[in-house]
Amino acid sequence: MKNIGAVVGLYPTPVTIVGTEIDGKVNWITIAHIGIWGVDKMLLSINKSHYTNKGLKENRTASINIVDEAMLIEADYVGIVSGKNTDKSNVFEYFTGELKGAPLIKKSPIAMECEIEEIYETETHDNFIVRPVNTYVREDVLSENGKIDYEKVNPVLFEMPNKQYLSTGKVIAKCWNIGKKYTKDKC
Amino acid sequence: MKNIGAVVGLYPTPVTIVGTEIDGKVNWITIAHIGIWGVDKMLLSINKSHYTNKGLKENRTASINIVDEAMLIEADYVGIVSGKNTDKSNVFEYFTGELKGAPLIKKSPIAMECEIEEIYETETHDNFIVRPVNTYVREDVLSENGKIDYEKVNPVLFEMPNKQYLSTGKVIAKCWNIGKKYTKDKC
Repeated sequence: MKNIGAVVGLYPTPVTIVGTEIDGKVNWITIAHIGIWGVDKMLLSINKSHYTNKGLKENRTASINIVDEAMLIEADYVGIVSGKNTDKSNVFEYFTGELKGAPLIKKSPIAMECEIEEIYETETHDNFIVRPVNTYVREDVLSENGKIDYEKVNPVLFEMPNKQYLSTGKVIAKCWNIGKKYTKDKC
Repeated sequence: MKNIGAVVGLYPTPVTIVGTEIDGKVNWITIAHIGIWGVDKMLLSINKSHYTNKGLKENRTASINIVDEAMLIEADYVGIVSGKNTDKSNVFEYFTGELKGAPLIKKSPIAMECEIEEIYETETHDNFIVRPVNTYVREDVLSENGKIDYEKVNPVLFEMPNKQYLSTGKVIAKCWNIGKKYTKDKC
């Protein structure tokens, strides 16, 4: 193995569009530096230079919209231009749920309406810990049991080393199940 | 769209094996509740009930090993049984780098040797913020420019709603590039 230095190799991660409202206007930004916090909360790690952070801090709400391939051109676009000097409010059609400042993208397969519970600041980033209040799912990506079917969603993923988007693959195994095949002799 | 309630839909996430050392013995656990913190750190969100947490807190080090399909049976196995009552030290062949308590899996495509910088505790979870010190990459998954090629790595991904593993798909676009095609008329 080759030691390539202090490189964060924990990819790919799902690409999201974070929706907010700043000075009464809807704004969108592409964020893939995300995480799962516990089992019921999420992390959004956003550079302090972004315009979005003002809205998130003022409203203490956000939307997190999963990106599929059909949304990718717009999704990448809202990560290229800043709301400081470009009106991005009409890039996505949206609806509102019960929270102010959390516009939800109509064509996203999964749109989460969230409250911000904590903000951990570092020198360069605001790390937002957010809790979903309502999760709106497109009917065509729900499985028969009423849960999200990620093969149908096919979320766009991100990797930092070569700055590329990847698609999601197929289901290959059930968790806490395939490991039962393990024996010391076999592996 | 259907409102399915307060569901965390931010999947799939890469599956990792977190390596530690407890009372002088190597231990492994499967963790997919992860994140990217800023650009140079990662999140590991681990339920407090796990044996691993003791080692992580004592050593303030950890390894994060990316899982490919060839490792999946062992990877799932170390998430099924606990180090409290099962010796998992010989499930993976490992090597050690410069940090104590961070065993690195030889056959993992990407093995990161990490220091723990912060621990944010919630009622149920320890949220570890970790910084890679050295990242060891299998030569066959490096691209010509010396960076990690995620198509070659093909990390195993996890989704919680149906508790399944998925494969990673193909590269579909370059970031901060495909968005240049956006025009209001087109989208």
